[in-house]
Amino acid sequence: MTAGQSWFVLTLVGVCIGLNAAIVSIVSEWLSDIKMGYCSDGWWLNQQFCCWEIEGEEVDGCDSWRTWSHITLARWIIFVIFAMVFSFISSHLVRSFAKYAAGSGISEIKCILAGFVMQGYLGFATFFIKSITLPLVIASGLSVGKEGPSVHVACCIGSLVAGLFDNFRRSQSKMREIITAASAAGVAVAFGSPIGGVLFSIEEMSHTFSIKTMWRSVFCALVATFTLAAMNPFRTGKLVLFQVTYDRDWHFFEIIFFVILGIFGGLYGAFVIKFNLQVAAFRRKHLANHGVAEAVTLATLTAVIGYFNRFLRIDMTSSMAILFKECEGGGNVFNLCQTPAQWRISNSLLLATIIRIGLVVITYGCKVPAGIFVPSMAIGATFGRMVGIIVKAMYRSYPQSGIFKFCAPDVPCITPGTYAFLGAAAALSGVMRITVTVVVIMFEITGALTYILPTMIVLLVTKAVGDFLGTNGIADQMIRFNGFPFLEKEDHVYNVTVSTVMRKDLTTLLETGMRVKDVESHLSSTNFKGFPIVSSDGSLTLVGYIDRSEIRYVLGALPMFLVPCGPYSFLWVERARKNRGRLANTPCLFTARYQEPDDIDLAPEVHEDDEPEEYFAPTTAGEGINFWPWVNKTPMTVSPELPLEIVMQIFKRMGPRAILVEEHGVLSGLVTVKDVLKFIATEKPDHRPSWDDRGGLEGLLEEVWTWGSDNVSRILLWSRRILRR
Amino acid sequence: MTAGQSWFVLTLVGVCIGLNAAIVSIVSEWLSDIKMGYCSDGWWLNQQFCCWEIEGEEVDGCDSWRTWSHITLARWIIFVIFAMVFSFISSHLVRSFAKYAAGSGISEIKCILAGFVMQGYLGFATFFIKSITLPLVIASGLSVGKEGPSVHVACCIGSLVAGLFDNFRRSQSKMREIITAASAAGVAVAFGSPIGGVLFSIEEMSHTFSIKTMWRSVFCALVATFTLAAMNPFRTGKLVLFQVTYDRDWHFFEIIFFVILGIFGGLYGAFVIKFNLQVAAFRRKHLANHGVAEAVTLATLTAVIGYFNRFLRIDMTSSMAILFKECEGGGNVFNLCQTPAQWRISNSLLLATIIRIGLVVITYGCKVPAGIFVPSMAIGATFGRMVGIIVKAMYRSYPQSGIFKFCAPDVPCITPGTYAFLGAAAALSGVMRITVTVVVIMFEITGALTYILPTMIVLLVTKAVGDFLGTNGIADQMIRFNGFPFLEKEDHVYNVTVSTVMRKDLTTLLETGMRVKDVESHLSSTNFKGFPIVSSDGSLTLVGYIDRSEIRYVLGALPMFLVPCGPYSFLWVERARKNRGRLANTPCLFTARYQEPDDIDLAPEVHEDDEPEEYFAPTTAGEGINFWPWVNKTPMTVSPELPLEIVMQIFKRMGPRAILVEEHGVLSGLVTVKDVLKFIATEKPDHRPSWDDRGGLEGLLEEVWTWGSDNVSRILLWSRRILRR
Repeated sequence: MTAGQSWFVLTLVGVCIGLNAAIVSIVSEWLSDIKMGYCSDGWWLNQQFCCWEIEGEEVDGCDSWRTWSHITLARWIIFVIFAMVFSFISSHLVRSFAKYAAGSGISEIKCILAGFVMQGYLGFATFFIKSITLPLVIASGLSVGKEGPSVHVACCIGSLVAGLFDNFRRSQSKMREIITAASAAGVAVAFGSPIGGVLFSIEEMSHTFSIKTMWRSVFCALVATFTLAAMNPFRTGKLVLFQVTYDRDWHFFEIIFFVILGIFGGLYGAFVIKFNLQVAAFRRKHLANHGVAEAVTLATLTAVIGYFNRFLRIDMTSSMAILFKECEGGGNVFNLCQTPAQWRISNSLLLATIIRIGLVVITYGCKVPAGIFVPSMAIGATFGRMVGIIVKAMYRSYPQSGIFKFCAPDVPCITPGTYAFLGAAAALSGVMRITVTVVVIMFEITGALTYILPTMIVLLVTKAVGDFLGTNGIADQMIRFNGFPFLEKEDHVYNVTVSTVMRKDLTTLLETGMRVKDVESHLSSTNFKGFPIVSSDGSLTLVGYIDRSEIRYVLGALPMFLVPCGPYSFLWVERARKNRGRLANTPCLFTARYQEPDDIDLAPEVHEDDEPEEYFAPTTAGEGINFWPWVNKTPMTVSPELPLEIVMQIFKRMGPRAILVEEHGVLSGLVTVKDVLKFIATEKPDHRPSWDDRGGLEGLLEEVWTWGSDNVSRILLWSRRILRR
Repeated sequence: MTAGQSWFVLTLVGVCIGLNAAIVSIVSEWLSDIKMGYCSDGWWLNQQFCCWEIEGEEVDGCDSWRTWSHITLARWIIFVIFAMVFSFISSHLVRSFAKYAAGSGISEIKCILAGFVMQGYLGFATFFIKSITLPLVIASGLSVGKEGPSVHVACCIGSLVAGLFDNFRRSQSKMREIITAASAAGVAVAFGSPIGGVLFSIEEMSHTFSIKTMWRSVFCALVATFTLAAMNPFRTGKLVLFQVTYDRDWHFFEIIFFVILGIFGGLYGAFVIKFNLQVAAFRRKHLANHGVAEAVTLATLTAVIGYFNRFLRIDMTSSMAILFKECEGGGNVFNLCQTPAQWRISNSLLLATIIRIGLVVITYGCKVPAGIFVPSMAIGATFGRMVGIIVKAMYRSYPQSGIFKFCAPDVPCITPGTYAFLGAAAALSGVMRITVTVVVIMFEITGALTYILPTMIVLLVTKAVGDFLGTNGIADQMIRFNGFPFLEKEDHVYNVTVSTVMRKDLTTLLETGMRVKDVESHLSSTNFKGFPIVSSDGSLTLVGYIDRSEIRYVLGALPMFLVPCGPYSFLWVERARKNRGRLANTPCLFTARYQEPDDIDLAPEVHEDDEPEEYFAPTTAGEGINFWPWVNKTPMTVSPELPLEIVMQIFKRMGPRAILVEEHGVLSGLVTVKDVLKFIATEKPDHRPSWDDRGGLEGLLEEVWTWGSDNVSRILLWSRRILRR
């Protein structure tokens, strides 16, 4: 019934993720509102529920909802104080109880899914602290999002729930499937976008793709979204975050402006990643022990500055909802649609864009739960809306000339809300370097289906600009910054064979003739994760491979008396765990020589009613510890002549920890992901695909340039020069 | 500039696919209308353009559009005659010029993408004949869709366009990337659903997933869709096929009915696949040479029967558009929304469902281009609409009782159109066994975003039912039926090592000491695709592997005089291709022994100004043909102890043609995909996951049953019994 169990576990994981997301949403909402005022009908009500009786219309307040003071200055001070308190509590909790709860978590989970082990990263402390600090951080007004952390929390839930079941605790690969599915559910509940979540898990998170895992992701995301919908935390009955009804079609000439948005997205991504990494380096060097102070300072700064710009003061999701709206049907919030105010609004939007970019650069990575999805989208939305307003102003001034001739005469021609929408997509794609996921998420959160082609065009331009500037996604850059062993998904050509890269000075174990003390000295003098086993005749013929942890397990379980060889010896080694000293001279066997041939493949079966005593008499093999049941008899091997690229493909697609290099049965080396990464880093310091070997996009861009503005190319080249510095 | 070239090729492929799709659409439309009547303003106008002046409203005709006759019987006869003529022309063209143009093509392309070679399957004849017969077949009214063939045509375009460039013609893997991208574009233009196309290429078509290929698919699908949108063949300016505005939310109690639709989808898929395979077996046995007669008979039958059911007479896309509509705002076509007519309409819908299922079973697979996407959706839509009408009738009768208490009082509670929508999704998913793609396609073609959760629930039930009944998708079943070498994506456990499966009686080549006549006798006495090379000392030490085609190439290019050994010998072998007979005793070398060590890795470079003459003097190696430059020195090798499951993973993820089995450097066997499939077929005749080892879904279903109707379980068990017979 393991398949049944796995569906049961997935259901449980999905329900828990949905519940957790609902609670986090409700608490965040309440905390965000409490900064402004309180409900006189009951302190536990947020503004929306406090003013619930007035239905159907968005209101800015009601009688029951009281602001903290009538004086603007006092309101401002209370706002800032709340931000400071929230950020202090959350950063203090993170520092004291769960350091891993800081940051977004997506980079680390990518590595975990690729096979990297980080003890405690998905543990209960991380889950609990991240869940309770996340609403505080959001409410503190810091320029961070809840989507990345929500993926991390979801993965913690997946790992914790699955850990309750033996099947999953024991199998790394099954655990990874659950974590992948949980990451899909995490995005699904964060955005209310189940299919977007599944695509995110395919495009960004998982290292290999399998239909089975995708199925699990679909199921888990569905259960989680369904739970969230059933909880209905905001009583709107909608999963769609920003309902829009773009019922007018776009015009072909608007593509020119869409391209500008795409370029902005690419530039935004590259700049943020570049400078955020510098901030991260500075933080590591100077601020390592001042996480709390840093977070409080940032929150204060954000609150002090943000209070004076209407787009920065309200939270990012609300601001996007306003910016995405059409002007018709109640979209004229903040005078966004009024012609006389257009230049003032544009200035305000530009300011919001610039300030928010600065805040994201210095905030992302500080020691609180912090995502970069929503801040990026908010930045893109302010910029996009600004472009939209400018284009609309141009159209108003010259309705009959040039490109605007294509507008239909009686209906509004330019919808600035769609520019905000496309700008948000571009910025998100620019910073994460994901595409199909972004398209689907944008549709799932807005329903703007007519704009699927413009969205794709914008994202293609963003990708082209990002490639031109040579950046990877922020998750990959963070992985590199932190030095995690992770092979990037993109392939490069190195023109060397694996023999160049492999480690040749190996610590090997001999099939026979080693004693416990020899093995232990091997263990203590090296920190290799495993050892190849070779024949004892000096020919280095490969026999197998054993993990360090397996040796440790057997040696740690050494019995007080000598262990008879034979298939059941492991029963004995588990019986007692003491008196190891006197066994130093016991021989160790890593060979099948004394086993029945039938037992080679299968782990020996033990029946409850077998009497172990009868195996006690020493066999003809003499006394010793037989490691054979723990030896991997068929390790992954390759020839030394194999090109490095193929070895990298094997690592990526098959996922072994180590690959042994063998020539005609004789061991000649060993290669791990770390060896490959070391080679890449030392041999080609800048191994990012340089401009020259991807002439394709340059070609494409050059074509764009021939009919595009010359300034664009100047900006791009100038940006590249800055970023390469 | 290869990267640039590849983007250029993708653009070209996308544009061609878009253009082709636009032309096929226009011609199909015209041909479909010509069956009914003609335009007096000009024979080249279809009904829509003929009546173009009346804008804004759907009309059933206008003065310029004349039907062929005023007498119903005459109209009917003309309708049938046109159907016969169209089907005759298309099946005749297929039989005479391009047999590969028949059928859907998806199964075959899946195999091609997995590495199987089918000469001519993506050739020009196939492309041309399939493109011109597709509109005829659609217009003939046969119960087939244009989506599968459109994928095939797109892949032909990809292969033909890329074949113009050396880079792609030479590299199988690059070609596969282009074909994958083209398949995405094919679905994209068929449905107007670019993201759905990309997901289709990931979920159904491609064997492995890579970000790079996904990118190319996105780009190609975008270009193709954009081209189609720019051509705007229907002058509607919309890509959305069936615009709906489901603005009312669904109710939780409706899930009960959604489950019924899901079960229908699963049952439909299983029944159609089961009986269609029986028809295919019958066709292969008895109708192999009567393709034309068969197609004409089927078209006549379809036209004769279909004319009398309003949902069968109009083409499937229009019928779906009508069925998906809400009752408000002009949705009352065919009296679909009138309460007095509800039982008559339900009967008509049920009849349409049953007849169409029968027609699909006998038609899919006949010798014309034929897809199963749209017919399945049309069947699901008629069934779903029927369920919707019945539910609405129940609600009208008991508006205040039971589950209907949850309905809001003033607004319509049940929207039958949404049931049609969900039924279409269920039937499509049931027959193809794809899910995420179906969700995205459904919401790209309708824009029904609120219904994303119900769609996912329906598809999960469909999958559970399909798994319970033990069916695979129709594409996979067709692959098995045709005996193509293709490993299914799902994994199974066999508990054997590769040594059980491998071929042991190998034909090997010796490193040295063989003569041309020996090699030629090996080639003629076997039909292996390649040969392992072993050392000449009788120890079977593995040296390398050489493809049959490479040997053929070298031997076919044998020069009229003896070839000197050395890295440049291949220059000589290309020089002349005659006088082979007298070389029978020339020694063949498959060894690096006489090469400079530096030359081992790289194919020897030849500069234009090198004078080959200087290498003419026989080297110390003596005379002979050196095959070394063509030998694969690092074939994929595994140990005989390796579990079969891992070998299958290597085939699936790394895609080698053959894997050599080697023990301590000594060759012990060879295994290909065919060997694995042979083992699976003989060892476990029914290797489909039996019910017992996937208790999970049974468990899930059983839970459903505890609160569901007992009849459902009876139907399911009965269906399984029939299908297992």
